[in-house]
Amino acid sequence: MAAAAAAVLRIPPPPLIPPLRRLRYASPRRSHPSRLVSSASAAAAARFAWDDALTLAADEGGGASSDLRGFFERVRTCNRGSELKSEFVPFFVEEQIVGYVHKGFVEHLRKFNDVITVSLGNNGRNFGEHITLHPSLRAPDDRTIAVGNIIKCLGELIPGIRNELYPVTSSYGMPVFFSLERAAAPYFGIKAYGVHMNGYVEKDGQKFLWIGKRSDTKPTFPGMLDHLVAGGLPYGITCKENVIKECEEEAGIPRSISNNAIPVGAVSYTDIEGYRYKRDVLFCYDLRLPADFIPKNEDGEVDSFRLVPVSHVANIIQTTEFFKQNCNLVIIDFLFRHGYINPDSCGYLQLLQSLRSGDCS
Amino acid sequence: MAAAAAAVLRIPPPPLIPPLRRLRYASPRRSHPSRLVSSASAAAAARFAWDDALTLAADEGGGASSDLRGFFERVRTCNRGSELKSEFVPFFVEEQIVGYVHKGFVEHLRKFNDVITVSLGNNGRNFGEHITLHPSLRAPDDRTIAVGNIIKCLGELIPGIRNELYPVTSSYGMPVFFSLERAAAPYFGIKAYGVHMNGYVEKDGQKFLWIGKRSDTKPTFPGMLDHLVAGGLPYGITCKENVIKECEEEAGIPRSISNNAIPVGAVSYTDIEGYRYKRDVLFCYDLRLPADFIPKNEDGEVDSFRLVPVSHVANIIQTTEFFKQNCNLVIIDFLFRHGYINPDSCGYLQLLQSLRSGDCS
Repeated sequence: MAAAAAAVLRIPPPPLIPPLRRLRYASPRRSHPSRLVSSASAAAAARFAWDDALTLAADEGGGASSDLRGFFERVRTCNRGSELKSEFVPFFVEEQIVGYVHKGFVEHLRKFNDVITVSLGNNGRNFGEHITLHPSLRAPDDRTIAVGNIIKCLGELIPGIRNELYPVTSSYGMPVFFSLERAAAPYFGIKAYGVHMNGYVEKDGQKFLWIGKRSDTKPTFPGMLDHLVAGGLPYGITCKENVIKECEEEAGIPRSISNNAIPVGAVSYTDIEGYRYKRDVLFCYDLRLPADFIPKNEDGEVDSFRLVPVSHVANIIQTTEFFKQNCNLVIIDFLFRHGYINPDSCGYLQLLQSLRSGDCS
Repeated sequence: MAAAAAAVLRIPPPPLIPPLRRLRYASPRRSHPSRLVSSASAAAAARFAWDDALTLAADEGGGASSDLRGFFERVRTCNRGSELKSEFVPFFVEEQIVGYVHKGFVEHLRKFNDVITVSLGNNGRNFGEHITLHPSLRAPDDRTIAVGNIIKCLGELIPGIRNELYPVTSSYGMPVFFSLERAAAPYFGIKAYGVHMNGYVEKDGQKFLWIGKRSDTKPTFPGMLDHLVAGGLPYGITCKENVIKECEEEAGIPRSISNNAIPVGAVSYTDIEGYRYKRDVLFCYDLRLPADFIPKNEDGEVDSFRLVPVSHVANIIQTTEFFKQNCNLVIIDFLFRHGYINPDSCGYLQLLQSLRSGDCS
């Protein structure tokens, strides 16, 4: 029984079918894909143009998807390294697990022993190997400042500082023990929450998704495909207010429209690479937009938007890695909820479960 | 980490809030609830009239639900007895686990040793205590007949024979090892699949659900509230065809309309009581109906239908046990997908996870 139950937490392989060959495109402005490249870098996939994606999407035919292999591949890309969990130790605050830190990274933290207490042996409190904050740090603000100073000292060990604080908590809605620089979240293995919104239009009974193409100058995932609106959830703002704020900034959607965005669930994933232990939970929103609404990026982070039939978006996800990785999960969730995936397809329930492979709490 | 992951599989308590008092009504035609009764029988809850439910629903106000305690209660009612799992042994067929059988029930099976092989000690094959089919039974049809004969011999030990066969499999879409009488499914702990459909109408931007009240003469859950359409998934029919068939029989919905039903995901639960180990997976469907459509029951299983604002349905679920238990899960899933539950409500993610507490495969 335990084995059956535990299986729910893993991403099962699509049963009885071989893995899909991975299509990765490196050539810009190619009207039809032909060259497969071996680079594992997500950025490599970004060297494509709208025409590449849209031609391919239309070629593959439309309608409900019965072969789920491509979707399984995309989910797997978001959930790497589960075999490396033993290289990490839990990070406790007030006897709650708030994160996981790589043993190699712990070595860099040792010298800050007025802030971080390292217990790599069993200390008799049944926690096993772990790290925690120095007991003198009791107030959340003191902890935030002290850990923030460490992050500054670590320099290039934690690249891409954003000056944006994420809450550190055991699970969503529980007490916030302190706040941590967003870029440092995966190095401390804390849960990071975000809001992702699918903006769609319905015309003559057919649904279309507004898809963004990220700016080529964006530091993360340049040039890749994206939702209409998405953003991390910083400390002190509700999901709904964050959606409304991001709608305005990313797509020029006024509050009068974004107010109609509805929460529709959540997806989660766990991705381990090097010192990084990413534990993300994304609150998913749907916004049905007026047919004549045209999004307009206000913050320079999006190159352009296109309105794409949902079945074509499904084809892009199944056959390419053009989308920023975690957007795939949120769109696959949309495909499930809007009836684009057939329950009699091989692996339907496994794929559905895999969308919350991370600790969704 | 293991502990954090395992927690996903359990139904967590709603954090930081006390359990909701349970409202159970035994008095018929009560205009407002006042008497709490202690009976654990679901049937006791069925002695109410439409007016009881609808008055209460409107009283409680509408809109998004921020207090999720009532929903947690309903989920818990579908997932009893997890502490009793050790009283069951796995049922293997072709080295796959297909079910779980109570050790007391195993004693009744012992005498059928030409059909069932009982191994309550370790047999050296690493399966531990288990039961399996006699090795002479290789063909699915032979197994179906042999086990069917046992069920006939067991008489009242398995009540409510339906003469309807369920497939026995390790998970949905995998090879079917044999077929088993529906009423016997929980005694052998096999997975049982069903389709449940929410039929809704949209008027002036407000959504309404068509709710059925089961016939008072129905042997299971008489008089209780129900979806517009639901049914078990027998051997040899696809989910979609089953939905279309049940739409016709239960609500008089012609194929021209039921063809528009869309699959939207699945819920699952595990309920242990006595010898019964229920492992159900329900494929969920939504059907948006024309505003002027009136359902009409064709098979005598439904007493009447009412069109109820979704927010009122949410109130009924939160504050009563008027709905057939597993319908609550499917409607809570509907509430999530249609934006009636707020992500900033205490326990949002836990409740979302709890809708698939059973092995959803």
